[in-house]
Amino acid sequence: MQRPSFPHRHLLGIEGLSPLDMTALLDLADEAVEVSRQAEKKKATLRGRTQINLFFEPSTRTQASFELAGKRLGADVMNMSVASSSVKKGETLIDTAATLNAMRPDVIIVRHHAAGAVHLLARKVDCAVVNAGDGAHEHPTQALLDALTIRRRKGRIAGLTVAICGDILHSRVARSNMILLSAMGARVRVVAPTTLLPAGIERLGVEVFTRMKEGLAGADIVMMLRLQRERMNGSFVPSVKEYFRYFGLDEDKLAFAKPEALVMHPGPMNRGVEISSAIADGAQSLIREQVEMGVAVRMAVLEALARHMPAGE
Amino acid sequence: MQRPSFPHRHLLGIEGLSPLDMTALLDLADEAVEVSRQAEKKKATLRGRTQINLFFEPSTRTQASFELAGKRLGADVMNMSVASSSVKKGETLIDTAATLNAMRPDVIIVRHHAAGAVHLLARKVDCAVVNAGDGAHEHPTQALLDALTIRRRKGRIAGLTVAICGDILHSRVARSNMILLSAMGARVRVVAPTTLLPAGIERLGVEVFTRMKEGLAGADIVMMLRLQRERMNGSFVPSVKEYFRYFGLDEDKLAFAKPEALVMHPGPMNRGVEISSAIADGAQSLIREQVEMGVAVRMAVLEALARHMPAGE
Amino acid sequence: MQRPSFPHRHLLGIEGLSPLDMTALLDLADEAVEVSRQAEKKKATLRGRTQINLFFEPSTRTQASFELAGKRLGADVMNMSVASSSVKKGETLIDTAATLNAMRPDVIIVRHHAAGAVHLLARKVDCAVVNAGDGAHEHPTQALLDALTIRRRKGRIAGLTVAICGDILHSRVARSNMILLSAMGARVRVVAPTTLLPAGIERLGVEVFTRMKEGLAGADIVMMLRLQRERMNGSFVPSVKEYFRYFGLDEDKLAFAKPEALVMHPGPMNRGVEISSAIADGAQSLIREQVEMGVAVRMAVLEALARHMPAGE
Repeated sequence: MQRPSFPHRHLLGIEGLSPLDMTALLDLADEAVEVSRQAEKKKATLRGRTQINLFFEPSTRTQASFELAGKRLGADVMNMSVASSSVKKGETLIDTAATLNAMRPDVIIVRHHAAGAVHLLARKVDCAVVNAGDGAHEHPTQALLDALTIRRRKGRIAGLTVAICGDILHSRVARSNMILLSAMGARVRVVAPTTLLPAGIERLGVEVFTRMKEGLAGADIVMMLRLQRERMNGSFVPSVKEYFRYFGLDEDKLAFAKPEALVMHPGPMNRGVEISSAIADGAQSLIREQVEMGVAVRMAVLEALARHMPAGE
Repeated sequence: MQRPSFPHRHLLGIEGLSPLDMTALLDLADEAVEVSRQAEKKKATLRGRTQINLFFEPSTRTQASFELAGKRLGADVMNMSVASSSVKKGETLIDTAATLNAMRPDVIIVRHHAAGAVHLLARKVDCAVVNAGDGAHEHPTQALLDALTIRRRKGRIAGLTVAICGDILHSRVARSNMILLSAMGARVRVVAPTTLLPAGIERLGVEVFTRMKEGLAGADIVMMLRLQRERMNGSFVPSVKEYFRYFGLDEDKLAFAKPEALVMHPGPMNRGVEISSAIADGAQSLIREQVEMGVAVRMAVLEALARHMPAGE
Repeated sequence: MQRPSFPHRHLLGIEGLSPLDMTALLDLADEAVEVSRQAEKKKATLRGRTQINLFFEPSTRTQASFELAGKRLGADVMNMSVASSSVKKGETLIDTAATLNAMRPDVIIVRHHAAGAVHLLARKVDCAVVNAGDGAHEHPTQALLDALTIRRRKGRIAGLTVAICGDILHSRVARSNMILLSAMGARVRVVAPTTLLPAGIERLGVEVFTRMKEGLAGADIVMMLRLQRERMNGSFVPSVKEYFRYFGLDEDKLAFAKPEALVMHPGPMNRGVEISSAIADGAQSLIREQVEMGVAVRMAVLEALARHMPAGE
């Protein structure tokens, strides 16, 4: 079957992708799910290719997901965890990029604490670059795996009402999801206390709510976010107990959504803070499925980018 | 050759294995020794399979041994070292298990500081689980590699007298060895100061001695244990000098055992504490051979469990 | 084509290599450059072989280079980072060597903070050993990659004037380079403040200068070294500003060398300390090329040693 070609060299964000690009990736990911469900979970797409996972912020889960994705495609995968302390100067990121580039990788997966760092790095290298989270900016593979999870369960994304709830301010997951879900035709809402809403959020074309009751009314998908208290330096830090009372997802609040509403969370969860254990482990939860879709989406992204990787001399 | 099938999905401990199971694993390990002695040390048993090494306690040696075992069988191996601090709540272990499970591994190797944690994890996942040490409970691959080392040198295990000496109280190695060696027909003794003997040890069917002279008399195998002073919080901590005087293995004490007695230690050794360097590096020492047998036994365990790994959809 | 055989089992230093050995490695490395420039960057030379990277000092760059080199040759590569704190006793290095040796590796790559530690280790194992830096002693693959970079750009090494500048005292890179470049017929100079010159350096057959103006006059290659202030405990530590003024490479000082002179640095650079950013990123800089040659040289070394790796039983 002829597939529409993915026209991008990098995956730096959801911003800049067309709905056709998104659909192409999700279709590839559906195939990758099957590969990971086999006993011998291997494709040869990246055989002999070099993948470097360059993580300036630790992330066991995302790094593991990219590592497995690369290995299942046959790549040689190398992990590089860089302590933040050694990259205080702006120039060091560029030196690191240039050094790695000289080792002739085919793709670099980057997580960095600064928004925009991944774009900067992509301009300095000859290989494909995938954003695995940059500051509060974007986390495109998380948005894609969320979309894949929704599409496989609901059969579509267009027309669904998705409520993204909680710490919107610090969340690159929320930002990437708002762009992707809107572009694919979902009706996107954000629900948060005003102190956890970024200024000018309305410009992203989402509906804004400050109470769960109104925000969840009629929702098909309730997407909870991790309360990122480690990023709230000096400013307003809500008490965990009060936060859960007003914004934590429990059975009473979930009852505001549609009866068949599904619950998502990007993990790792703060149980009893943004979500109750009963809901997290309950019948409406898609949280485990999201993790499985994560490996598949990352395989799909690597496969899509493989067409633009250095061809050899 | 038709081999008796290994009927277990997991290897959580020596407890629950029949002598036939143990023999099957040791026979497989004898073959695995040959593989690791080739130039191209590869089998395809786990080709395309995913092995995750999940270590909540650091262990360079055991993790390396499992990593090489998996790679020599063709598996994609992923290491995950989890700092103890991030797993203080009981629920986090379960969340970690569920997350990893969703990535569709075929086998997870687990080391954890709490006895029983590995059993708990095994109940939450769909793949094979191997216990690489859980608290003071079990360390089954260590006991198997010790048995393999003995069987290759002495030709048998049944009928031998094995003296396990030292810090029995904190030792999962001792516990797994007592069960395995007794089941395979050895006569097992423990030799330790009373403060380092667990309550009720007699119920395991071993003979208990509190002096090396009597405990080693007529022994075929003298198995020394590491003095685990890091686990002795608040309670009795022996002085190193005094401990060596009464329980450290030197030439004088080894002379109590049979002239052809062999010496073992699971490593890493505290030289001059539980064993003298002369004995550790001497002609009766099997300590280096134990390490080689470690890789072989782990290959054998992975191969035995491969028959029960997820078959694919 | 028949190639002259590499007669050594280990690569412990440049000392002891003949010019023919060096040329054989550089010729092999020229071929390895081509492999890493292909889309599928693979050779089967080390298929099924086990490579252990044993780093007692952290080094992201060198370890990554060896890891990629091994993987591109098909080896199973295992990284072991050993914290310095756990190897305070001399005997522990030997225990570590003996333990790893029992796991039947084919090659161990070692970095250690003590000069001579790698030689000691090589005497205790049955496999090939490669020195990836031992104290202030040797760093042979760095010298080989520097030579490869020079030879590819200048077409030869013999007859060139090479000025090695800066912290000679603490530099294993300088030491290995002085031996290699002299042996291959270059005219080698060192340029440094007297406080950063080792006693008796003249015996290595190099010309010694204490001012950049005279030292760089007529040089074909200007090789800068990292100022290793972390190794200057208690003794003279120059101020960064003053150091740059007298010994940092900027346009004014580079003008003393030949107009077509090329600039090198082993990395990581202290920009503004031993080298200006304009020079580091300028047209005469070979710094990025050195990194690429690093992977190729390490592949060449592994291939040369493969002929002497354990043949299997």
